[in-house]
Amino acid sequence: MKLGCCYYPEHWPEDMWEDDARRMADMGLSLVRIGEFAWSRIEPESGQMHWEWLDRAIDTLGNAGLKIILGTPTATPPKWLVDTMPDMVAIDEQGQPRGFGSRRHYCFSHNGYRAEARRITVAMAERYGDHPAIAAWQTDNEYGCHDTVLSFSDAAAGRFRAWLEARYGTPHALNETWRNVFWSMEYRSFAEVDPPNLTVTEANPAHWLDYRRFASDEVVSFNREQVDILSKISPNRDITHNFMGFFTEFDHHDVGRDIDLATWDSYPLGFLEQFWFDGDDKRDYMRQGHPDIAAFHHDLYRGCSNGRWGVMEQQPGPVNWARFNPAPLPGMVALWTMEAFAHGAEFTSYFRWRQAPFAQEQMHAGLLRPDGEEAQAADEVREAARVIERLGPQQTVKAPAALVFSYEAAWVCGIQPQGGSFRYLELVYGWYSALRRLGFDVDIVAADAALDGYEMVFVPTLPIAPDGFVKRLSALDCPVLIGPRTGSKTHSFSIPDGLAPGGLRDLVPLTIARVESLRDGVAEEGDGFEVMRWLEHIESELVPEFALKSGRGVVFRNENYRYCGGWPDRPLLTALIKRMSDETGLATTVLPKGLRIRRTATHQFAFNYSSEPVLFEQTGQTIAPASFAITALTT
Amino acid sequence: MKLGCCYYPEHWPEDMWEDDARRMADMGLSLVRIGEFAWSRIEPESGQMHWEWLDRAIDTLGNAGLKIILGTPTATPPKWLVDTMPDMVAIDEQGQPRGFGSRRHYCFSHNGYRAEARRITVAMAERYGDHPAIAAWQTDNEYGCHDTVLSFSDAAAGRFRAWLEARYGTPHALNETWRNVFWSMEYRSFAEVDPPNLTVTEANPAHWLDYRRFASDEVVSFNREQVDILSKISPNRDITHNFMGFFTEFDHHDVGRDIDLATWDSYPLGFLEQFWFDGDDKRDYMRQGHPDIAAFHHDLYRGCSNGRWGVMEQQPGPVNWARFNPAPLPGMVALWTMEAFAHGAEFTSYFRWRQAPFAQEQMHAGLLRPDGEEAQAADEVREAARVIERLGPQQTVKAPAALVFSYEAAWVCGIQPQGGSFRYLELVYGWYSALRRLGFDVDIVAADAALDGYEMVFVPTLPIAPDGFVKRLSALDCPVLIGPRTGSKTHSFSIPDGLAPGGLRDLVPLTIARVESLRDGVAEEGDGFEVMRWLEHIESELVPEFALKSGRGVVFRNENYRYCGGWPDRPLLTALIKRMSDETGLATTVLPKGLRIRRTATHQFAFNYSSEPVLFEQTGQTIAPASFAITALTT
Amino acid sequence: MKLGCCYYPEHWPEDMWEDDARRMADMGLSLVRIGEFAWSRIEPESGQMHWEWLDRAIDTLGNAGLKIILGTPTATPPKWLVDTMPDMVAIDEQGQPRGFGSRRHYCFSHNGYRAEARRITVAMAERYGDHPAIAAWQTDNEYGCHDTVLSFSDAAAGRFRAWLEARYGTPHALNETWRNVFWSMEYRSFAEVDPPNLTVTEANPAHWLDYRRFASDEVVSFNREQVDILSKISPNRDITHNFMGFFTEFDHHDVGRDIDLATWDSYPLGFLEQFWFDGDDKRDYMRQGHPDIAAFHHDLYRGCSNGRWGVMEQQPGPVNWARFNPAPLPGMVALWTMEAFAHGAEFTSYFRWRQAPFAQEQMHAGLLRPDGEEAQAADEVREAARVIERLGPQQTVKAPAALVFSYEAAWVCGIQPQGGSFRYLELVYGWYSALRRLGFDVDIVAADAALDGYEMVFVPTLPIAPDGFVKRLSALDCPVLIGPRTGSKTHSFSIPDGLAPGGLRDLVPLTIARVESLRDGVAEEGDGFEVMRWLEHIESELVPEFALKSGRGVVFRNENYRYCGGWPDRPLLTALIKRMSDETGLATTVLPKGLRIRRTATHQFAFNYSSEPVLFEQTGQTIAPASFAITALTT
Repeated sequence: MKLGCCYYPEHWPEDMWEDDARRMADMGLSLVRIGEFAWSRIEPESGQMHWEWLDRAIDTLGNAGLKIILGTPTATPPKWLVDTMPDMVAIDEQGQPRGFGSRRHYCFSHNGYRAEARRITVAMAERYGDHPAIAAWQTDNEYGCHDTVLSFSDAAAGRFRAWLEARYGTPHALNETWRNVFWSMEYRSFAEVDPPNLTVTEANPAHWLDYRRFASDEVVSFNREQVDILSKISPNRDITHNFMGFFTEFDHHDVGRDIDLATWDSYPLGFLEQFWFDGDDKRDYMRQGHPDIAAFHHDLYRGCSNGRWGVMEQQPGPVNWARFNPAPLPGMVALWTMEAFAHGAEFTSYFRWRQAPFAQEQMHAGLLRPDGEEAQAADEVREAARVIERLGPQQTVKAPAALVFSYEAAWVCGIQPQGGSFRYLELVYGWYSALRRLGFDVDIVAADAALDGYEMVFVPTLPIAPDGFVKRLSALDCPVLIGPRTGSKTHSFSIPDGLAPGGLRDLVPLTIARVESLRDGVAEEGDGFEVMRWLEHIESELVPEFALKSGRGVVFRNENYRYCGGWPDRPLLTALIKRMSDETGLATTVLPKGLRIRRTATHQFAFNYSSEPVLFEQTGQTIAPASFAITALTT
Repeated sequence: MKLGCCYYPEHWPEDMWEDDARRMADMGLSLVRIGEFAWSRIEPESGQMHWEWLDRAIDTLGNAGLKIILGTPTATPPKWLVDTMPDMVAIDEQGQPRGFGSRRHYCFSHNGYRAEARRITVAMAERYGDHPAIAAWQTDNEYGCHDTVLSFSDAAAGRFRAWLEARYGTPHALNETWRNVFWSMEYRSFAEVDPPNLTVTEANPAHWLDYRRFASDEVVSFNREQVDILSKISPNRDITHNFMGFFTEFDHHDVGRDIDLATWDSYPLGFLEQFWFDGDDKRDYMRQGHPDIAAFHHDLYRGCSNGRWGVMEQQPGPVNWARFNPAPLPGMVALWTMEAFAHGAEFTSYFRWRQAPFAQEQMHAGLLRPDGEEAQAADEVREAARVIERLGPQQTVKAPAALVFSYEAAWVCGIQPQGGSFRYLELVYGWYSALRRLGFDVDIVAADAALDGYEMVFVPTLPIAPDGFVKRLSALDCPVLIGPRTGSKTHSFSIPDGLAPGGLRDLVPLTIARVESLRDGVAEEGDGFEVMRWLEHIESELVPEFALKSGRGVVFRNENYRYCGGWPDRPLLTALIKRMSDETGLATTVLPKGLRIRRTATHQFAFNYSSEPVLFEQTGQTIAPASFAITALTT
Repeated sequence: MKLGCCYYPEHWPEDMWEDDARRMADMGLSLVRIGEFAWSRIEPESGQMHWEWLDRAIDTLGNAGLKIILGTPTATPPKWLVDTMPDMVAIDEQGQPRGFGSRRHYCFSHNGYRAEARRITVAMAERYGDHPAIAAWQTDNEYGCHDTVLSFSDAAAGRFRAWLEARYGTPHALNETWRNVFWSMEYRSFAEVDPPNLTVTEANPAHWLDYRRFASDEVVSFNREQVDILSKISPNRDITHNFMGFFTEFDHHDVGRDIDLATWDSYPLGFLEQFWFDGDDKRDYMRQGHPDIAAFHHDLYRGCSNGRWGVMEQQPGPVNWARFNPAPLPGMVALWTMEAFAHGAEFTSYFRWRQAPFAQEQMHAGLLRPDGEEAQAADEVREAARVIERLGPQQTVKAPAALVFSYEAAWVCGIQPQGGSFRYLELVYGWYSALRRLGFDVDIVAADAALDGYEMVFVPTLPIAPDGFVKRLSALDCPVLIGPRTGSKTHSFSIPDGLAPGGLRDLVPLTIARVESLRDGVAEEGDGFEVMRWLEHIESELVPEFALKSGRGVVFRNENYRYCGGWPDRPLLTALIKRMSDETGLATTVLPKGLRIRRTATHQFAFNYSSEPVLFEQTGQTIAPASFAITALTT
């Protein structure tokens, strides 16, 4: 695994560049990402290209032996460009334009801006496409950041109508599929269809789902336009995009198919603070992040782009964007780096080289402080570099457990939660975390991925099962656990004929007669477990494997398939995983709080995310807080 | 009491209608409501009427022996209609249009839409007005649902100005009545007056109150236009409208006067979840609803339309629109049906016949599941039908207690809460619930209703006493309890000369010298009771009947009149009701938690809303959870 | 100290004026403020001046011996004026106009409205400028009330661009100062710069800070236009403006320099309810206000206008605008009056004479009730007047402690909190309160104020140290305590070269290597104290004076200077103040809960803010709840 950093030569006096490059190399870095926000310096006025400074920056970095990941600057179009077409900005759900003054001020559906984005991409590719220092391209930056996937602009409405026409052919077909007869929402032409915002009450969920699919497709096609240009003009360079954490607004599997490798931006402390974790976790892991955050995304994005992936931005210290921004415990930057290494990353790139003392991110730490001194992370980077060097390349092996992840499932649960606490990401993360707590490595795979070869398969929920999904499951002979709401919707967001779980009934013969959602603080008790948030009333001739004290069945098993008709708590999940492990012949390792393990083909890595020393019984090692231990596997 | 259901023939293949109709009749239903959202199927293009399908639907239902309540479809104007006059939509308080894509996308004040609403009403009345299967008409659907009473459109502003001119004659009179000299808010013409939204800080409360009165009048006149058409073209059919729960945005007494019977839509579980009930109630009654929710509305709407009323939509299972949506306990659908029966409903109609597997309400249960199988409620409907049949028609008798309810009072408290927890509905509901807990039947009556013949009269609050109200109270010789803020405002939202309680002083000689509101968690202690939220400092020569430990008087009694100058807790309310009962010679029955009773002329019904069996001491019966017991009264 | 009241002759029949004036004088009042909302009565139509009523009102009040503070009515432009230029209203951050219907419906940057404001000010000054009863002028009313300082109108954008051009000269200089290269935010002309609202994510903090500076300057120049007119046409009258509580949206020190004396509007109960105080304080001081609220503002505003100040509006009973509005304990109105007296106020004016029974403030108490009877406060005013008369004029002396306050600091912390609980006002108030709890009088001074002569100097935080600030501190030989974030930003909102605390390093040689913010409920433990919310990682060769148990230094001392690199809890603050007191030879008095003291040149005042009697050990007096005791100082 290579190490790298994100660097902004345009932020610093040119006479600092050479020294910066030298120091990067000295620190053990071999990659540097640049350029993704530099449009106003590349083209200060329309058509007036100022390449010279960037030529010199690339040469300077390259001369120091660094390989460059060059970003297209389309996330930050300059003011002069926006002023030529003010309607290029996105419109938010409330109808407000999202204007110039920060970044991502564009609508994915604006054809004029798409032309400009292609133009600057062509220009950069032509200028640098065959430069020997350029190792890879990054398209744009963090698609969707700041809630920018959905736009409700005229441009978006126009392309949405065309998208619908291509999908449905006739307004009649659209009406029939969405079942617009409900509430007289029928259209006579595609021109009559608007985005689903600003309705009196909720719009048709089928309308919303198609709008989300369309919006996701817009991201995909926007990205593909750049990929097509770059791959043609600058062949033999990897093309990547840097995804974000806990973010499901567009289908990353779709974008992942178009790029060479997926990367993501890893900020475990900010994610802990900003997401659903409870107060205890937020306190206990304040300076470490919850132990599964980084691994979850590593495993998710590894599944996005044919197994090739990396970390484009790694948190090196406190950040600026969470409500509270503590500092990582000493050791965490090295630990996070090794976690990526253990999961098979091609590189980890720290964000950023030197903390910028100005503008929006001035409180975001870097490897260097604003005064040029090394920040705490620098030594940890060196340590990580040494360990990586020592261990040599690691080979990723297929994990015993596959966990099925679906962006569309996240949209469905968001559009129609039915219970206010039914959050898709939280459900999936909970299943993932339960597996990790039992010592398992996990591959997170798309719903259309091949599932053969796994020893256990988990489907936390998949309301809309894609074509062939049931068939693929039915071909498995390993234990399979299917979660609530799976199969509960058709492709057009209706309840399937014969009710949920639809085609899954072929695997576990049961019918969801009705469902109920439970308010926070209310749970239904079983024997040693509870069901919270969501409870299905199941009709089946099967004897339930787990039932509530009331007698209502929760988990039903048919051969190697199990269906769980509720939101399981940790004890129930753990019990299920243990049974499945037993059935498939896998050993479980109940790990102490804060400890996690990960295996490559040759090594086992143990990570202590807690702030106390932890004894890892398997090896007898006591691992210091925020530290890790590596064991060679005997094969 | 008849039973019925809501049905949407346009949602189902025509070849299912006959079987549906037969099954309805077999289940014990004799009424079916249809049509209220079907405009786009009746008139798919402007002026192109497609009656044939509806003719067949009505005939099919009628041929099965069902009587039809036919709704005018004005809650869902089709897209083509909206496009002919895009300014017909309401404008929200923030100035945003509330567009097409769900329902209720119209402004009550838009003259163009009013013409269209009349046109479709005339067309339906002419087509079906004398059809033998048509038993009744429903105007529109749930006026005000999704916060649609208030609109801040140009259309509304224009009609508001005319309304003001009709009320005040001259701008000078308006300025004097609202006292616009305060903050130089004076107008020189009615054209200068805008709706009270988007002001820098709060607008004049007199301005808001008149805007609310105007908006309520707009609902009333919109409805009356349909009533006038229907009663002329389709005589001898009842006209109704389906009101909602815990909803006070327009004056239902005013609408009630124009229709033949009031109906309402009863969703006890959703109401429990969405309203002010505390965490314990939300847990304990999660699957039953709080025991007074249904009864409160039965008694309220019985008072709205000369005693004739019904339940147009009865929850038959989990709904889709609350934050959490649990399933009713087995038995609750029958229990709710019997509660309506015991309160004198003419019918109870379940919403809906078959759960729609598509569009916005796909998670809303019906009597049938989407797959056509019977849902849990079906058997309970049959059970209720049997009991109703067995008992025969029940005669409603005047209750011992009258509770005065005023929509205007709700507006006044909402416009000027003065204490953040002073919620009108919660206050009134609390008084109602205290009466029910002591075993009393209650009539909820309008502030202009006759009060003679009651044995106790309760006025939880009535800030603006209508003309003649004090005189009517003064003619009573039964105990009367008057709550805080009563008489505290003039018709034009000023403090009356001589201070609160204004003319009520004739009944209880006292003066509210000043008032204070108390934050949540703070209460003033009396002897065995507390005053919360609101406390008046009262000057009177009377010796207080109840006083705080500080000596401050809270309840003052003069002959048969009591004034309570604070928000009483349950112990104080209970003590007051017991004293009043003693004075008037009524016996009280302290009911155990979850138990409620209701009497008709011939029977006493006892309902157990708790999830445990409850002993009803009066009869010695132990009533199962979510069940009821009926005793014949000996006369 | 004089006493007065706020009076609105236009609200009352003319035949009441003479009696009102007589009763005011009889109650001990000698001042009356009038006129500030009367524009629509002075000029009911454009150019038609109706002075006669105001002539008579002024004569009537003057004839009763009252001196008048006459307000310019620019906070309430009439409807006809707004209609002549509808774009004069402010635009909120979401882009919505803030229209007519209440007050303050103008944008400070609208040149047309500025001309109108000057015109009415000239007219009033010419009419009454030499009237013998006119003692002073009040400009406008409560600048910024209802969040009206910031406007995002075209008018504001235009004047902002001019302001930027005057400050920076060229777009290049602006780009360099804000460092707009970050995210390609560079401008080619000032015309390209917009206000910083409606950006996709946060705008550049330098952009925001300049927008706040500009907006503050707009208030200053708006006010100065009136001051220039009044001082020229009506010489020898004091000019004042009434500031608000806990309000930092514009720089009051700047406005204070232009007026003769600062006044403020004192509503301790409302401020307690609406601000950050915890639940215990809100309960314990519900009817008294937290003991430091009034004193804090007295000391703050005394520092705003060269030591001359007063209370323009004093709460006399319950108000109408807080979420909950309790009544003051008997005695509090007198207590608050004496607290102002003890702090050197020139006058205290109660708001308002008679409670208005109509319009927005009808629930706001006065000295009289709406019915003309005296409210509870009246007797307390008489009592206060007697005590004031008895004691005679009090001379304010320099306090031992200076506390540095900066409006710009509040903006910086608001623009970039970095930790969600870092609230500037709360930090400063906490330091002030800790000093008062130890018995100290405090002068709250501007960051550019002279600091010599104080015995202790406190700088809770000052992210941007003004020019010369470090030099002035370095000239002191008394103990100085400098709080977190001080010196952490340059004038253009960047991190200074060499990191925080920038130039302060000359006083305490240390470097803030990094900072972290801590979520609520998390604290870092020291020996007997805790650091919350904010913790700096400090590098220094000094031995820390206070350190965490982890060893991390928190307070560093160098000679007479201390730097505290965290948000100190009360124990740490108290320990620091005690050490500083010892060093400078001051005695501390640990006061019991609720007790506070204040000294003039000749007297010591002790105030009991608690609801229980409190023993003041120093004097042996037991002071009743909501009461005070006065001791002559022996000199």
